Amino acid sequence: MIRHTVVFRLHHAAGSEGEKAFFAAAAPLVDIPGVKNFHKFREVSPKNDFAYCFAMDFDTQETYDAYSNHPVHDAFVQQIWLRDVADFLEIDLVED
Amino acid sequence: MIRHTVVFRLHHAAGSEGEKAFFAAAAPLVDIPGVKNFHKFREVSPKNDFAYCFAMDFDTQETYDAYSNHPVHDAFVQQIWLRDVADFLEIDLVED
Repeated sequence: MIRHTVVFRLHHAAGSEGEKAFFAAAAPLVDIPGVKNFHKFREVSPKNDFAYCFAMDFDTQETYDAYSNHPVHDAFVQQIWLRDVADFLEIDLVED
Repeated sequence: MIRHTVVFRLHHAAGSEGEKAFFAAAAPLVDIPGVKNFHKFREVSPKNDFAYCFAMDFDTQETYDAYSNHPVHDAFVQQIWLRDVADFLEIDLVED
């Protein structure tokens, strides 16, 4: 199992219409084949500048790659993510 | 629920005695009251320089604070973490 995690912050303010539109646009990611246990979190540590987190599990590297290359993911990245995200960090975890 | 996550890398090489000793010294953290779902992960994304992750859940901010201030945690930080950890990032997540 691979836990794919991305922490990020937006150009939009918390509670703004832009923030709402971003998360509405992200909703279809959940239904891409292979995605399990999709969670949206708020990032609340004062020790970093990120504000949100998406986390999801993939059974295999192949399903992870298929997600990354899926047209729904690609459209989201190109049309929404690159425009709205001010900073991010991807973290991929595998259990020991 | 607060998911407390820390990604980090060590001064020790993978597979080294120093790495083994670090994780042996970290084992008692699991038994500090309030810690739930403790996981140790390897961090495998090529997009950052971290190598490991500890993740754990706390029911409340109070149990999280009690963990942070617990003598077992404090001794680990002072005697092991500060000596062995080359870089780290704390990420605290709450579900929306």
